[in-house]
Amino acid sequence: MKKKFRICMWLIMAAIPVQQLLAQGSGKRPPNFIIILADDLGYGDLGCYGHPTIQTPALDQMAREGSRFTQFYVAANVCSPSRGALLTGRLPVRLGITGSMAVFFPHSTSGLPEGETTIAAALRTKGYRTGIVGKWHLGHLPAYLPTNRGFDEYFGIPYSNDMVPDNKAGIPYPPLPLFRNTTVIEENPDQTQLTKRYTEESIAFIKRNKDKPFFLYYPNNAPHVPLYASSGFSGKSTRGSYGDVVTELDWSVGRILQTLKETGLDRNTFVIFLSDNGPWLTQHEAGGTAGLLAEGKGSTYEGGMRVPAITWWPGVIPANTVNPAIVTSMDLFPTLIHWAGLQPESKLPLDGFDQGEVFAGKRKAVRDIVYYYDNDRLYAIRKGPWKAHFTTHPGYAPQAPQPHDPPQLFNLEEDPGEQYNQASAHAALIDEFRSLYQLQFELVKPAPSELNKVSAGPIDDAFKKLIKQRTAQ
Amino acid sequence: MKKKFRICMWLIMAAIPVQQLLAQGSGKRPPNFIIILADDLGYGDLGCYGHPTIQTPALDQMAREGSRFTQFYVAANVCSPSRGALLTGRLPVRLGITGSMAVFFPHSTSGLPEGETTIAAALRTKGYRTGIVGKWHLGHLPAYLPTNRGFDEYFGIPYSNDMVPDNKAGIPYPPLPLFRNTTVIEENPDQTQLTKRYTEESIAFIKRNKDKPFFLYYPNNAPHVPLYASSGFSGKSTRGSYGDVVTELDWSVGRILQTLKETGLDRNTFVIFLSDNGPWLTQHEAGGTAGLLAEGKGSTYEGGMRVPAITWWPGVIPANTVNPAIVTSMDLFPTLIHWAGLQPESKLPLDGFDQGEVFAGKRKAVRDIVYYYDNDRLYAIRKGPWKAHFTTHPGYAPQAPQPHDPPQLFNLEEDPGEQYNQASAHAALIDEFRSLYQLQFELVKPAPSELNKVSAGPIDDAFKKLIKQRTAQ
Repeated sequence: MKKKFRICMWLIMAAIPVQQLLAQGSGKRPPNFIIILADDLGYGDLGCYGHPTIQTPALDQMAREGSRFTQFYVAANVCSPSRGALLTGRLPVRLGITGSMAVFFPHSTSGLPEGETTIAAALRTKGYRTGIVGKWHLGHLPAYLPTNRGFDEYFGIPYSNDMVPDNKAGIPYPPLPLFRNTTVIEENPDQTQLTKRYTEESIAFIKRNKDKPFFLYYPNNAPHVPLYASSGFSGKSTRGSYGDVVTELDWSVGRILQTLKETGLDRNTFVIFLSDNGPWLTQHEAGGTAGLLAEGKGSTYEGGMRVPAITWWPGVIPANTVNPAIVTSMDLFPTLIHWAGLQPESKLPLDGFDQGEVFAGKRKAVRDIVYYYDNDRLYAIRKGPWKAHFTTHPGYAPQAPQPHDPPQLFNLEEDPGEQYNQASAHAALIDEFRSLYQLQFELVKPAPSELNKVSAGPIDDAFKKLIKQRTAQ
Repeated sequence: MKKKFRICMWLIMAAIPVQQLLAQGSGKRPPNFIIILADDLGYGDLGCYGHPTIQTPALDQMAREGSRFTQFYVAANVCSPSRGALLTGRLPVRLGITGSMAVFFPHSTSGLPEGETTIAAALRTKGYRTGIVGKWHLGHLPAYLPTNRGFDEYFGIPYSNDMVPDNKAGIPYPPLPLFRNTTVIEENPDQTQLTKRYTEESIAFIKRNKDKPFFLYYPNNAPHVPLYASSGFSGKSTRGSYGDVVTELDWSVGRILQTLKETGLDRNTFVIFLSDNGPWLTQHEAGGTAGLLAEGKGSTYEGGMRVPAITWWPGVIPANTVNPAIVTSMDLFPTLIHWAGLQPESKLPLDGFDQGEVFAGKRKAVRDIVYYYDNDRLYAIRKGPWKAHFTTHPGYAPQAPQPHDPPQLFNLEEDPGEQYNQASAHAALIDEFRSLYQLQFELVKPAPSELNKVSAGPIDDAFKKLIKQRTAQ
């Protein structure tokens, strides 16, 4: 009975409507929020996370002035679903950002469904000015662009920076558009200049809005392949092109924090830096590293979904702290909404928890559960230190799922590299995980796939040919 | 011709007698030195090196107040040879700390040869007070004890903390002695109290000698198995017993730095914290992790010989720096001797370089070569970013050496995990490495084995039986 009760509590908490999580806001001006998202940056790729040759002085300083998280998760092991979940506080499987295509492509005809509420849309109801600078990847057709999803302003590219006419796989992609709001202002922009331009746009946004509350979402497309750095960074890192690009991203973060200090906004602005998923290991030296964690992008082992994450808010977030609390990107929605003093209207079940007190160092943890989905399928569950893998597949390349019965069982706090399967010694725990799995499976049914909505034509044909080739191999 | 010249220069530098490396000392009081050595601590086991669940606030603070090295090497992948090299600045193969036994054991009859000069012995000629607190492991018979090797004082155990009567392998070891100078003051001391006692002894040494220059060598036996923490730390780390022990070691380092601050010695004391070799991976959760590096203790892959290393000297070593310079533990001898204003009398060739300017942040690098020996055999060479493996064997357990022809070639700065062999694309570089190998092989001939000098009797019989069993498997 006791065990069942505990499981039920988890389900209730996991599915609680947003408004019940929120306290009333106070009368004073709510804080600004900046989310900086890296693309395919691995757990082990920053100086402060132990990389030996990538120098990241600005992010290291951000960690000294704030908190560095060591058990921070994203909701998916690839790009589009991870971004959708971050912005809505909901699992990708609920958003329909699942399907055989894995992410949105230039021939996708859908995006983040219109019934979903983003952080930006929620904050706008409280008078926030909202902007996105960088890579969207939640639908590039007009109805799905950021300015139709709660953002006042948009500068950036609509999907990944490798979806360009000149690509390795030979897919006939159209020119990569660079958007300002809903207008394509350039095609195939010089990618060596993007981080500079994103930085300038971000700083301009901050300065333009310094007298009102704002939310800036800055999903840089770096260090996703192909790797491009500007002349000031290109060839400078001993880690090669990947190091160059991470170093320029680091510079960009430093410039933004510097701007906050110069404008006096630092004590009223929460900033978080994180990655959208693990490193793309099959790119070899052009991809990153998950450090001591197993696997990378595309995997439900820790390297695929545990990411570097640094929080910063001088005066609120304690400086120089390493925070091992379990947090997910979906927790940002309720946390920011709460800090803004909001009660959003959405009745959709939320998968995030308010982590405000954890971020502020006032509480050790509010969450001890993580669900690891691969696309629309629940692969693994973490509860406290334990993680049970019901299904795995190695690495990024399309692989047949491998079921595990009993599930693989790892103690992530003692064995973060997931090396020592302890399933045989913990039968009762396995039973508990089986119940958790069954309940989550029954409670969260996949929404219809948005990723499978694609237009027929040369891109679709090329993909079909590619899949046929791979299957034949 | 040019290539040959470069190779010769390396050889000359590698074999240059100590006194030529040293400048004359100035008239003022020379600095104090403290070397804190961990035992089997892996590259990835500290908070500031990216471990997610081992909390090391004191070492993280030491890194913030000093420099954290990311390419710091020891001279051997196991205990005794690494320690011999650290104290003498010479490769273990020159010291004879090689042989079928790998390290010194309770039935060893030898130790660090009497003709060798330790850092302690050299500094004592300049009036330094010298002390060792912790695990010696360079010979436990009277002639080889630290007080016969340049140390005024000794408190600690003579070899590893698993060489006790009640050991897993069933070897009939005698009781583990705890020495004060040359006297056994206890047998089988309570290992949960050792770090506390080492800390007290170290602090007392510092306070007792605060008015003269001193050298304190503090090789704690933690976190070598078996894992023992005192009641204040036992069961406290989410990383389990290994985490408990590292956390107590971290506390110990913090207490020593605090003592230096309280006594006003901080601005005249160089402190380095490092490990003796990589993590003992075959111990599973009871061993550590090398983070993103390959393999661990016993291997010539990076995980076996690249170690965490933090340097600290407020006012001299720049704070908050991540230093990627290539440094080895053998460089401490010439560096400390130089800082002390000494010209040692030894004519023995030295394998260390004076890294004083690198430590002080005044020079980027003085060394770009590392020789990786497994026991008495040269396995690999690093030069600049490149490392060539001529021979490898996986992991710690006794394995047949596996020769590589051509050698495996990795770019360690781009590929620190040694995953992408680039030998086929770099024929000229391979040739250069072959020449380097041949020259080093010809120049440095193994000294007679000290490790093979053991007394006949029950321990030797037990080892012989064990080896026979392993060979039969």
